[in-house]
Amino acid sequence: MAGSVFGTIFRIMTWGESHGKGIGVTIDGCPAGLSLCEEDIQQYLDRRKPGQSRFTTSRQENDQAELLSGVFEGKTTGTPIALIVRNTDQRLRDYQAIKDVYRPGHADYCYDRKYGFRDYRGGGRSSARETIGRVAAGAVAKKLLDHYGIQVDAYTKSIGDIEVNPIRLDLAKRDDNLLYMPDEKAAEKATAYLDQLIKEQDSAGGVVECLIRGVPAGLGEPVFDKLDACLAQAVMSIGAVKGFEIGDGFAAAKSRGSANNDAFIMAPDGTVKKQTNHSGGILGGISDGSDILFRAAFKPTPSISQPQHTVNRSGQNVEISIKGRHDPVVVPRAVVVVEAMAALTVADHLLMARNAGII
Amino acid sequence: MAGSVFGTIFRIMTWGESHGKGIGVTIDGCPAGLSLCEEDIQQYLDRRKPGQSRFTTSRQENDQAELLSGVFEGKTTGTPIALIVRNTDQRLRDYQAIKDVYRPGHADYCYDRKYGFRDYRGGGRSSARETIGRVAAGAVAKKLLDHYGIQVDAYTKSIGDIEVNPIRLDLAKRDDNLLYMPDEKAAEKATAYLDQLIKEQDSAGGVVECLIRGVPAGLGEPVFDKLDACLAQAVMSIGAVKGFEIGDGFAAAKSRGSANNDAFIMAPDGTVKKQTNHSGGILGGISDGSDILFRAAFKPTPSISQPQHTVNRSGQNVEISIKGRHDPVVVPRAVVVVEAMAALTVADHLLMARNAGII
Amino acid sequence: MAGSVFGTIFRIMTWGESHGKGIGVTIDGCPAGLSLCEEDIQQYLDRRKPGQSRFTTSRQENDQAELLSGVFEGKTTGTPIALIVRNTDQRLRDYQAIKDVYRPGHADYCYDRKYGFRDYRGGGRSSARETIGRVAAGAVAKKLLDHYGIQVDAYTKSIGDIEVNPIRLDLAKRDDNLLYMPDEKAAEKATAYLDQLIKEQDSAGGVVECLIRGVPAGLGEPVFDKLDACLAQAVMSIGAVKGFEIGDGFAAAKSRGSANNDAFIMAPDGTVKKQTNHSGGILGGISDGSDILFRAAFKPTPSISQPQHTVNRSGQNVEISIKGRHDPVVVPRAVVVVEAMAALTVADHLLMARNAGII
Amino acid sequence: MAGSVFGTIFRIMTWGESHGKGIGVTIDGCPAGLSLCEEDIQQYLDRRKPGQSRFTTSRQENDQAELLSGVFEGKTTGTPIALIVRNTDQRLRDYQAIKDVYRPGHADYCYDRKYGFRDYRGGGRSSARETIGRVAAGAVAKKLLDHYGIQVDAYTKSIGDIEVNPIRLDLAKRDDNLLYMPDEKAAEKATAYLDQLIKEQDSAGGVVECLIRGVPAGLGEPVFDKLDACLAQAVMSIGAVKGFEIGDGFAAAKSRGSANNDAFIMAPDGTVKKQTNHSGGILGGISDGSDILFRAAFKPTPSISQPQHTVNRSGQNVEISIKGRHDPVVVPRAVVVVEAMAALTVADHLLMARNAGII
Repeated sequence: MAGSVFGTIFRIMTWGESHGKGIGVTIDGCPAGLSLCEEDIQQYLDRRKPGQSRFTTSRQENDQAELLSGVFEGKTTGTPIALIVRNTDQRLRDYQAIKDVYRPGHADYCYDRKYGFRDYRGGGRSSARETIGRVAAGAVAKKLLDHYGIQVDAYTKSIGDIEVNPIRLDLAKRDDNLLYMPDEKAAEKATAYLDQLIKEQDSAGGVVECLIRGVPAGLGEPVFDKLDACLAQAVMSIGAVKGFEIGDGFAAAKSRGSANNDAFIMAPDGTVKKQTNHSGGILGGISDGSDILFRAAFKPTPSISQPQHTVNRSGQNVEISIKGRHDPVVVPRAVVVVEAMAALTVADHLLMARNAGII
Repeated sequence: MAGSVFGTIFRIMTWGESHGKGIGVTIDGCPAGLSLCEEDIQQYLDRRKPGQSRFTTSRQENDQAELLSGVFEGKTTGTPIALIVRNTDQRLRDYQAIKDVYRPGHADYCYDRKYGFRDYRGGGRSSARETIGRVAAGAVAKKLLDHYGIQVDAYTKSIGDIEVNPIRLDLAKRDDNLLYMPDEKAAEKATAYLDQLIKEQDSAGGVVECLIRGVPAGLGEPVFDKLDACLAQAVMSIGAVKGFEIGDGFAAAKSRGSANNDAFIMAPDGTVKKQTNHSGGILGGISDGSDILFRAAFKPTPSISQPQHTVNRSGQNVEISIKGRHDPVVVPRAVVVVEAMAALTVADHLLMARNAGII
Repeated sequence: MAGSVFGTIFRIMTWGESHGKGIGVTIDGCPAGLSLCEEDIQQYLDRRKPGQSRFTTSRQENDQAELLSGVFEGKTTGTPIALIVRNTDQRLRDYQAIKDVYRPGHADYCYDRKYGFRDYRGGGRSSARETIGRVAAGAVAKKLLDHYGIQVDAYTKSIGDIEVNPIRLDLAKRDDNLLYMPDEKAAEKATAYLDQLIKEQDSAGGVVECLIRGVPAGLGEPVFDKLDACLAQAVMSIGAVKGFEIGDGFAAAKSRGSANNDAFIMAPDGTVKKQTNHSGGILGGISDGSDILFRAAFKPTPSISQPQHTVNRSGQNVEISIKGRHDPVVVPRAVVVVEAMAALTVADHLLMARNAGII
Repeated sequence: MAGSVFGTIFRIMTWGESHGKGIGVTIDGCPAGLSLCEEDIQQYLDRRKPGQSRFTTSRQENDQAELLSGVFEGKTTGTPIALIVRNTDQRLRDYQAIKDVYRPGHADYCYDRKYGFRDYRGGGRSSARETIGRVAAGAVAKKLLDHYGIQVDAYTKSIGDIEVNPIRLDLAKRDDNLLYMPDEKAAEKATAYLDQLIKEQDSAGGVVECLIRGVPAGLGEPVFDKLDACLAQAVMSIGAVKGFEIGDGFAAAKSRGSANNDAFIMAPDGTVKKQTNHSGGILGGISDGSDILFRAAFKPTPSISQPQHTVNRSGQNVEISIKGRHDPVVVPRAVVVVEAMAALTVADHLLMARNAGII
């Protein structure tokens, strides 16, 4: 119960450190009969792997998924699906510089206080490589959601002050640039901004937006396990996320009831629709049949190469310069992680909703 | 597992509907030996009860807590603490108007789709009265935190566009006005704004901020059960919350690493401190020993008396006017609910942290 | 997480002490749409209540169930079902005799060591009255199982050495005697035996057997949550149970594979049957479609009025004579508790099994 | 939530099938600072591996544990400990014979009914190889218990009718024979019995007994998570176990209160002891400081080579002869599995007990 388990019915447990033998995840509770192969998972790992561009760390990792169990003759068997990604880039590095020093913006100090010591190699468990387990499991969740006609798509909404223009937003173009920004012009501006930051040995934050289509009304549990509350935990549990909002989010706090309420209306096909979607697809914690739309705020990459003040384990004030190349912004590689966490959450609620009534 | 359970070690289950016999909560996992009496709980219930001002519903409820178990000779025994608040205001109302109509901004439609029907009296389980269980349990959690020197204080940060001025913010003055705004001038402006909205048959949203002091470094679990992720679920699970942010939150997404990183520094007393607190007291999901500071965005009260378009259960477009007096803003009464959810989360993590190492 | 929660999807939390204000239970996860009223619960409480015969404690308790939430217009709503039974017999007793003394066979000493002190009035939480919450929740589970054609029936299999004769066993006659023994002759002998024990200020143990009919093949999860493993926990968690066995149980350990294996055979109606049922209806932890049959061994009532050696809180050897009338055997009143725990377990697995495959 | 998770704080998830790529387990919640290496785990795997004698399957498996995460510089870090054992003996076999036929005494039919199909190679997930994950995790739990002075030792109590003589029982001699029977004479008799059964193409059941020493009073939670109830689930979840009893178990059902109650007495060292241990070390679900002693009944190996009647997937009555060499009794190899499950349960309760009181 030390926080490496996520989900109730579609339940996962992840493991692994940045410089250990690998990273992995086991999924317990995936229904039997779903088509699944390694390639289904690999395509998502490829989206988060480092070394894709000059804005991602130069670490070379293949991040190759191996499917160890739970699939027989191409279909899930209902028993646990174990996935492992071996760490291949384990060359020796000099960690003496950070071994005894607490990097600002990182969890080094907190781990030492919690556990008495820490695996300091590349951040250990608090490394961004930890998200590999999430992405691999999320790929399986997405496969399950596909089966039910549910699509989860995240993208870079903004980097620093540069935001996607809603008029130009075209999801189909998301993968056309290295920043996963579905607006070419914004991507160009953001690219220039990041090049500038690299020169200045600094980093940027940004916002990821996620759109979930095809969710039927009725997913989400009343009270504590509201669908949006679970999405919030799922997304806030990604390192560097500092904020979460659904629908109009913080803007709703400045709105009025008359403007914020979404009027229901009968669609020509006889179904109930909403004229607007300020709610972001969830009312009272339960999906209302509209698109689910949420955003996550990521802080700037804490690893910057300019000198910073900090302290060391011996209780001395010291200066630190974090060497090596680091992503000047985590957002582009985090897009697929947000997508994964959203998919895991919706998959779990989809299965839970099967028990809402007697049959 | 239908969402009425919260917490892992300090675990609660709530029950009750707006117009049923009452609302209650049972706490399993409160350590033995804690002083506890009904008055400890009552003071928090009094802060959320209706009828306190012209900005809250005129419903008359005493909301008297009865402690049913788990306490012997004034101390918790380690066994479940059951609390019940009887609904006293059960006079018959005419629910025919909303029985078959889906109120915009409410969960009526979602409940019908999920369960096939719903308890339509006053919103049933989705009523704001559901939060009584949270507040009662939160009072016990606060008592536990007190024992360890941890204080949780929430307050109204803003209503509509009117925000507390950080320079004037004085927590001691929070309870001096009906809006629980720790800034008299802002409270005056917000009062005028709400009076205007009442005239216009409209409602406002707002932001609650919560400050948690005295949390030692080391609470929170890596990966999925990060302390901020759990706070996010806890707070987003309160009805009407549409956004959550910790520390600089969404503003961090526009910042730079050099500005957003908090430098560590040795305090004169030989302890590690941070020069700033952009992180909001949590790094990598684990408390860093600084104050924890988060905000929750509440949408405007969906119940407004002006006519709205919607549909009914028979699939017809209809117009609805929600009668009766409703809070023009939920924020003031939600302050204590946010405080409760934060206290429950921190209490749970405090107990979980006991297992971080061998002894 | 202090042990008062049972079940994963059909999940209950119980509370209450022998001499507190009452005993209760909340059920979270009962599907919506099930007919339910207080009488459905009361009939089961009546079967376990004291004062039914000279073999049960003379404590006068009405044990009247009050349904507090989760039901609307006679049907479950899918939200928590809270039930309370007020303790009515709270007259002052003299507990000085047992306050500081550890009764042999009771948990007094263990509670003191675990929690530092205990609610000594009538055993507090470790009292047999704790089972009221189980029986009330079990009644709801039985109602759910009824809907799916599943019947759970427990009965007294033996008291001391006196056992029901399988040839005479007639479930329909179970309630014809005070011992819930479905064999009149065995009941007569057991009655005489108990009368003798009362004279000798002693007590008896016994065995409860439980038959579950109508369970479809496929309930139970592989590995840790095998249906029989969950039944074992459920039943062993009843106070005084010292053993559990399914099908042939301990006798199977002396058997041979050729005798113990149940041959499958096609029934005339084209379904798969087993020629024998040594397995007790479960293979590999999953129901095989046959009747489920298990037994629970209850130890003799530890409260006996003859003098016993023990120690007190001050660390002195003392002698204790437990006054008042006590059941000379717990088995007859435990029958309905076993039934309840079995029903809760099967109901939970019935709902879990809905997620075995894609739809 | 499909049953592959065990434990609350010291929590494990296992995965793997008989003929898949391997078997593994991840442990979340092991406290930081515990010394751990692969050899700690390997010694337990060696005790369960096949091919040790003529009474175990001839399958050649090295069952080599690889420690993948959670340990840094020889100590646990508090983050998940992942372990994998690759299946090395994956040579092609002819499974056509059992692919479409339901082996009596096995779960083939149940899996087909539950999931629609099954991984029929060597039993898939229901294979005895599944216990590798339990044993590996149990080894870590035992290391933790060692740190607190708690020892868990299981042994073969009986095979068929041949039982260890309590007078001759010498735990130190347990590993001197292939049957893990701590009584040389009984082992000789049992060996002859098994040789006879092999000739007769038949199999035997047996009983494993487990002794847990050094458990302090106070472990175990009241009500549902009683220590003995959790042990029962843990042990009954091992394939082929049909019964569980603690202390006097089923014999207690025939005893009297005056004989079954254990008198407390002050030991010369000023501690509380019991004069007898009919309770098996647990009262009211909580450890009483005495040795914990329980037994598990194993059914005879269902795989026997003599012809048996059964049905196939097409609904025809057929005869099956299960080829290959199979263990004529599972008990000797199950001893270490029982030990592992007991260790996992006690370790989890040891950590849970840290939260019994305020500090």
